[in-house]
Amino acid sequence: MARAIRSNTAIDPDDVTVAYVGGGSRQWAPNLIQDLAQSGLNGRVRLYDEYHESAKRNARFGNWVQSREDAVADWTYEATESLAEALTGADVVVLSTQYDPAETFVHDLDVPKRYGIYGAVSATIGPGGIMRAMRTVPLYREFATAISEHCPDAWVFNYTNPVHFVTRALYHEYPGINALGLCHEVLGTRHRLARYARDHLGMADATREDVSVNVKGINHFTWVDEARCKGVDLWPTLEELRDGEEGNRTFTGEDLADESVFVDNWQVTWELFRRFGVLPAAGDRHLVEYATWFIQGGKEELNRWGVKRTGSDYRAKHWTPAESDQTTDVEAWMAGDREFELTESNEVFVDIAEALAGDGTYVTNVNLPNVGQVTDLQNDAVVETNAIVRAGAVKPIAAGGFPRPVRALLRGHVETIETVIEAAADGDLDAAFEGFLIDQQVRTLQTEDARELFAELVDAQREYLEAWDLEGSTVLAESSACSID
Amino acid sequence: MARAIRSNTAIDPDDVTVAYVGGGSRQWAPNLIQDLAQSGLNGRVRLYDEYHESAKRNARFGNWVQSREDAVADWTYEATESLAEALTGADVVVLSTQYDPAETFVHDLDVPKRYGIYGAVSATIGPGGIMRAMRTVPLYREFATAISEHCPDAWVFNYTNPVHFVTRALYHEYPGINALGLCHEVLGTRHRLARYARDHLGMADATREDVSVNVKGINHFTWVDEARCKGVDLWPTLEELRDGEEGNRTFTGEDLADESVFVDNWQVTWELFRRFGVLPAAGDRHLVEYATWFIQGGKEELNRWGVKRTGSDYRAKHWTPAESDQTTDVEAWMAGDREFELTESNEVFVDIAEALAGDGTYVTNVNLPNVGQVTDLQNDAVVETNAIVRAGAVKPIAAGGFPRPVRALLRGHVETIETVIEAAADGDLDAAFEGFLIDQQVRTLQTEDARELFAELVDAQREYLEAWDLEGSTVLAESSACSID
Amino acid sequence: MARAIRSNTAIDPDDVTVAYVGGGSRQWAPNLIQDLAQSGLNGRVRLYDEYHESAKRNARFGNWVQSREDAVADWTYEATESLAEALTGADVVVLSTQYDPAETFVHDLDVPKRYGIYGAVSATIGPGGIMRAMRTVPLYREFATAISEHCPDAWVFNYTNPVHFVTRALYHEYPGINALGLCHEVLGTRHRLARYARDHLGMADATREDVSVNVKGINHFTWVDEARCKGVDLWPTLEELRDGEEGNRTFTGEDLADESVFVDNWQVTWELFRRFGVLPAAGDRHLVEYATWFIQGGKEELNRWGVKRTGSDYRAKHWTPAESDQTTDVEAWMAGDREFELTESNEVFVDIAEALAGDGTYVTNVNLPNVGQVTDLQNDAVVETNAIVRAGAVKPIAAGGFPRPVRALLRGHVETIETVIEAAADGDLDAAFEGFLIDQQVRTLQTEDARELFAELVDAQREYLEAWDLEGSTVLAESSACSID
Amino acid sequence: MARAIRSNTAIDPDDVTVAYVGGGSRQWAPNLIQDLAQSGLNGRVRLYDEYHESAKRNARFGNWVQSREDAVADWTYEATESLAEALTGADVVVLSTQYDPAETFVHDLDVPKRYGIYGAVSATIGPGGIMRAMRTVPLYREFATAISEHCPDAWVFNYTNPVHFVTRALYHEYPGINALGLCHEVLGTRHRLARYARDHLGMADATREDVSVNVKGINHFTWVDEARCKGVDLWPTLEELRDGEEGNRTFTGEDLADESVFVDNWQVTWELFRRFGVLPAAGDRHLVEYATWFIQGGKEELNRWGVKRTGSDYRAKHWTPAESDQTTDVEAWMAGDREFELTESNEVFVDIAEALAGDGTYVTNVNLPNVGQVTDLQNDAVVETNAIVRAGAVKPIAAGGFPRPVRALLRGHVETIETVIEAAADGDLDAAFEGFLIDQQVRTLQTEDARELFAELVDAQREYLEAWDLEGSTVLAESSACSID
Repeated sequence: MARAIRSNTAIDPDDVTVAYVGGGSRQWAPNLIQDLAQSGLNGRVRLYDEYHESAKRNARFGNWVQSREDAVADWTYEATESLAEALTGADVVVLSTQYDPAETFVHDLDVPKRYGIYGAVSATIGPGGIMRAMRTVPLYREFATAISEHCPDAWVFNYTNPVHFVTRALYHEYPGINALGLCHEVLGTRHRLARYARDHLGMADATREDVSVNVKGINHFTWVDEARCKGVDLWPTLEELRDGEEGNRTFTGEDLADESVFVDNWQVTWELFRRFGVLPAAGDRHLVEYATWFIQGGKEELNRWGVKRTGSDYRAKHWTPAESDQTTDVEAWMAGDREFELTESNEVFVDIAEALAGDGTYVTNVNLPNVGQVTDLQNDAVVETNAIVRAGAVKPIAAGGFPRPVRALLRGHVETIETVIEAAADGDLDAAFEGFLIDQQVRTLQTEDARELFAELVDAQREYLEAWDLEGSTVLAESSACSID
Repeated sequence: MARAIRSNTAIDPDDVTVAYVGGGSRQWAPNLIQDLAQSGLNGRVRLYDEYHESAKRNARFGNWVQSREDAVADWTYEATESLAEALTGADVVVLSTQYDPAETFVHDLDVPKRYGIYGAVSATIGPGGIMRAMRTVPLYREFATAISEHCPDAWVFNYTNPVHFVTRALYHEYPGINALGLCHEVLGTRHRLARYARDHLGMADATREDVSVNVKGINHFTWVDEARCKGVDLWPTLEELRDGEEGNRTFTGEDLADESVFVDNWQVTWELFRRFGVLPAAGDRHLVEYATWFIQGGKEELNRWGVKRTGSDYRAKHWTPAESDQTTDVEAWMAGDREFELTESNEVFVDIAEALAGDGTYVTNVNLPNVGQVTDLQNDAVVETNAIVRAGAVKPIAAGGFPRPVRALLRGHVETIETVIEAAADGDLDAAFEGFLIDQQVRTLQTEDARELFAELVDAQREYLEAWDLEGSTVLAESSACSID
Repeated sequence: MARAIRSNTAIDPDDVTVAYVGGGSRQWAPNLIQDLAQSGLNGRVRLYDEYHESAKRNARFGNWVQSREDAVADWTYEATESLAEALTGADVVVLSTQYDPAETFVHDLDVPKRYGIYGAVSATIGPGGIMRAMRTVPLYREFATAISEHCPDAWVFNYTNPVHFVTRALYHEYPGINALGLCHEVLGTRHRLARYARDHLGMADATREDVSVNVKGINHFTWVDEARCKGVDLWPTLEELRDGEEGNRTFTGEDLADESVFVDNWQVTWELFRRFGVLPAAGDRHLVEYATWFIQGGKEELNRWGVKRTGSDYRAKHWTPAESDQTTDVEAWMAGDREFELTESNEVFVDIAEALAGDGTYVTNVNLPNVGQVTDLQNDAVVETNAIVRAGAVKPIAAGGFPRPVRALLRGHVETIETVIEAAADGDLDAAFEGFLIDQQVRTLQTEDARELFAELVDAQREYLEAWDLEGSTVLAESSACSID
Repeated sequence: MARAIRSNTAIDPDDVTVAYVGGGSRQWAPNLIQDLAQSGLNGRVRLYDEYHESAKRNARFGNWVQSREDAVADWTYEATESLAEALTGADVVVLSTQYDPAETFVHDLDVPKRYGIYGAVSATIGPGGIMRAMRTVPLYREFATAISEHCPDAWVFNYTNPVHFVTRALYHEYPGINALGLCHEVLGTRHRLARYARDHLGMADATREDVSVNVKGINHFTWVDEARCKGVDLWPTLEELRDGEEGNRTFTGEDLADESVFVDNWQVTWELFRRFGVLPAAGDRHLVEYATWFIQGGKEELNRWGVKRTGSDYRAKHWTPAESDQTTDVEAWMAGDREFELTESNEVFVDIAEALAGDGTYVTNVNLPNVGQVTDLQNDAVVETNAIVRAGAVKPIAAGGFPRPVRALLRGHVETIETVIEAAADGDLDAAFEGFLIDQQVRTLQTEDARELFAELVDAQREYLEAWDLEGSTVLAESSACSID
């Protein structure tokens, strides 16, 4: 029988136990703390992190926020020293942690570049994304096992990238898990569609919440084939924009010089919409990693679409746990050095949790194993569609299929993901290389260059690849780039 | 590309045009009129009926209701003389009409009985149900064609039985149609589950709306594998009831003597739950037509499960258009001979229409072509699951699959339905007989007896089977029961 | 990757080791011995049987045959006392043994009859066939395990009924097995088609070998949709026969009084051909167990089609190992009491083995897991189609699909088979009952009667059902027919 | 019902009518004439060609050959002026013609090269192959229509490239056609495997006929996962060769300077075998068009694998109908200027035709719509596997599936082919461009460069693309490379 996601016990809104793995986070944890303080839920949060001190700081911050008058909900925070302690009896588990340091991300970007692959983000697919998956998946398999032991029915929210790989690994390891993969990209598309409704349809107050889409695909490569704002079909407007000035802008490196790496000019989106008739629903910088035409050539060819490449310097800076503006905030807020105002983040976590606890019906996009919500992608692959959340249940909404060419693109990536997931179950590095080799970015290399690239990346990150059989790998043995012998 | 159900234009809540085919109805039309008068929608209703006078009477009643002070919405009613007139420009179409007279239903029940088939209702599957489908499907193909011409984007609500056959025929004829098949049975199950929650879980105020289920199957043969009331899992309670006195009652004909034919003691439901681990979600009298063990034997064997057979005398009386208590009501209400109080029916029609017009998110069970919402039944077969209704869109919720034995039962019926639908497209009576022959009820006959039964039914109803090629049929030619030559 | 059947080593025609499990057989073993003596293969045969004496007698007979001048091939025979000894290093394994005694077959026929089920053979499907499967499958799972240990690449020929259940069990237990299920029924159909070619197409010398068919289905329920004799299409002839006297004969019990239970008048075949347009390819007495219309009613209703019911007295007599005419032959031949003439049987075993050993290309029908040779039945179900045999390889021929109604019949039986096979893996009697309950013959009973029938059969045969969890069964506990507690 | 390939009438070996479309061929026709003269078949051949004079010359040659004493079979030849005349009543149709002149093939090679795509042959996939398909498919749709009218049951042998596109188009246009796509590549692999058996297994006399393979894929991209020579498993030998010197040779342009473009050093084959565990079964020059890693970089990178790029000068010379050595032969032979010796070609055409006419069982690789012979590629896609040929029937052999990464490569190409075939049915150039854009070779370009490449190719070949809607194409309108307006 196809498995339905179910929890035997609904969440009691007045007694929720949250286990937060990666609870030392500098940005997401403070946001969550504030969201919970203003929610309809009450309970306790256990923060667990490899960096225990960071978890303790966030626990202090959480309790500090709760001491404020404008904290309407009732929550307590504590940092736990073990994963098991955090998980035991949890109703909700948040997974949001990356142990491997910034330097690995630098490799993910820079090594492929030397082989001629100009990934824009290199974080969820392509050689960098696959390496990240290979480092992350074994750890998340362990999390899945721990969840199956300590809180088998808990609702698990995975925020860790690559979301499709990681969420798939959770289910592959523990098929009974109630895990959701979450991501902002589709929310961003709805946000932008609301802007178009305001600007072109006279809906002055339209917001993301007013925009409904039929969305489907895999994380960071989702597609929309219906979009409405307050019920009004946005398709004619989108087609007009695509064919007019908005959909046909070009950029130079100079134009983008002062922009953040997150700049999104939607020119990749418009071009894909023009070619295939359906609208991509992820940032352009992610799309180009999956629809790889746009990263062919070099920097200028990518910039032409209004996309900036994520420089490895950016990565190095922003992933360093030691320092960030955000860190300063928490301590500063508590010390009174900076004014604190309780604000709501844009996250849907609390919305989902409230709906699970019985507060009405909530619809949002989530990543779940395919049980039919997406046509023509294999069962069990983790796909992203809308889902409906109600008391004790999350159910994906059947979103249908794709134009054949889009289906072809999607299937290609699913094959890579599934190949790597299966390889990871055995720690079989040669099998993982097969998935690497058929990746759309890697296919611009000769097989031998692909092998060298792979070996070089593995060699550089070997300390984060302990779950893999490096010694037994013939691919590494063939390689001249690898110092492993 | 797998088709998504879509309407290019959302419904404007202040300007809705409803075409009601079968608008002379004595019961459903007055209910709809009252529901609309209390709804958040405004517009006009065009009533079309083969019996134009009945439509005119309902139009008068509709406008009479609107003249009352407690009618908060603004609606006008008119009866149209042609289908085209009713449909042109409609936003919503209601299909609820059966042209063939009561005597055909008498045949559907009595002729198979003479061959030893004790169908309890004989209205949606089995020899009687198939005959009804054969009479009804050609007409609804015509409706589908008319809709494609006059209001191709309209939302079409089909209430006509057999809902799976009829809704399938609408899509088979006009694949672009936005049609929903609607039925009460699952609502009845949720109603009963609410009662169990009140009686056994201390949820004193629980109602149908508090009960959520994961439901899937085909109309009148749907199954539930998750059920919650306000988020509380009902499964343990259901298992206890099944194993206790409630789930193990037996009945005699005498016990049921004073009961209506609609009596439902849930003993078939409990027995199927016991055997297969999932809970049927339709009235026992319908279930026994699909899970045919229960109609083996005779009257007492059926009564033992607390089910009464629908007598053909009941049919003859209740399907006669000329007279019914309900008719009297409308005239009596308008004449002031009977006191009128504006009441709400239990129908979900207005809830769905309001959600389509942008009033929030509504979830209910509907019959739609399978695009993946049900695993392991063929694509395009009309299946019943929950769907989510929002502004301008209805999307089925992915409900997963079935235990293998239940899947086997369902597939058998789908094969019959699909065989008959394809036969109807060509008017091929011999092909329809193949679907008849593999029907689970018919399989208790020898093939020659099945042929005679079929021929006799066709012969008796030939004037309602004009769309079929009776002359070219070898099955009829073989038969001694048939006077057609 | 879908598995291909392969042996790493081809059979060396001059050095073949055959393990014959059930080698004490009175009929099949002497035939095999004679066939091998006249074959292009040489080697040794190890006979293993629960009745070791029988195996020894056949070994003596084998060596006696080899001592004759007309034995052109070179074979030696020995009886082994253990299964392991027989299997170790075998190139070919023959499985043809049934341990449970004749009385179980009497139950299979007589107990269901008391409940109103008139199975004609009750040996491969229906309540009797399912019980036989339940007794046999656990034993054959053990054989599969032994083969995986002692001769993992051997070619395994399974002759034991129910062939579909048993062959499926071999693969379910040891997916790497190279097993073929073999049966005569399709050969019989080709034999009969050759007769029609002789009688109606003037092909005076046509034999079974001249007839080629496209065949597909499951064992004992196979269907032909192309048939040629020496390339001449037989379809027009078949349609003429079907519509004429040959295809429309009726019989009475009296007509059949002197016939053997194996009498086959093809009237079931013609009727199914008439109804569905494709030709069944198994004896009528088997067909009626799968196309159950023909066993509805009683003895006369079955006789009307020219089919005799296998009486349990016949079973009791012919399955008794102690005595049979055949036994006498072997001893008599060796003693010189009866004249012996070396003859060839009609079996295809030697033809297949010779082709596997490199002697050309051979095509015949075999039972294999579905890898695509049959459309629309599930993968891995054991299906019967033609296969091509060449040196070291057997590959099924892609035979396509079925008219929808025929597909519906086939799928129903596959669901039963798969349900029982999965139940057997766990020894779960309640799960097996689910497969029993959805069997087409059982569906003519009330569920409670079906349960009593099942319990009664299990109770009567409990000593052959040791692999099943009888104590834990709720079905038995519910039953009044069962003495197990 | 899944369609079975069938002819209602078997071929009468003494009265075969062959229609040869493209019968003016300089090489293949003389070969066929000689093969037929030595065959077991007799009849007449009608040669039809756009160049009627060429057909007449071959007819003269055919009759001249028949006048020789060593022509054991009895055949007559005539050239027909119309296609209809050639086809009417034909038992066998040979399709082997390409109307578009050599210059189009020059474009296919040279234009993509200017955009950086170094296709090695550019004839069956990639931009050049797709253009060739776009020129050829409309013509072959016309052939299919003509066959459906004049000889609907004929056996149709398609030799025209791209075989997968063209054979698919025949079935897409006339689903009832009995067409086979034929190609030499797998025969070449078997030939080479025989050589390895001679060289490494001491089978001194091994030939192609002794080698059997389990082969599957699409034309020019087929894979072998079992290979035997006289039943002996070749896999261990292949693995040894792969890992030794044979499988690890490198080449320079200089090494290949004197080689023909058809040189095949199997280094691509070994590398793919090394990476994926299954053995490709087509010439390396074809493989690199599908497994595009090998054409990344430039000339030296391709030469490194022992593959030469087909120069457009070669194409220009060898495809000119006006002149070739072969032409001279026929005239010279008939004039007595050159000695003629009746020889047999290596073609399987006569073997297949003889088997169809009842002469035993023949097994060879053919291209047919997928009905299950290949797992995990879509139904109806034209795939290549072995098939068994017998009197009046060709049936594909179920060959199973692929390792996931190989499946991913194959599916990608099937998506392109199916997209173009569907586009051709409507003459929709923009839809064809979608198939072009997702081609693996094209994906190394930016979308705009791909568009320009496409437009430039279309523009250059517009006179051979009359079946396409060039005026309505938005892709052409967007393009600056296209002079069409």
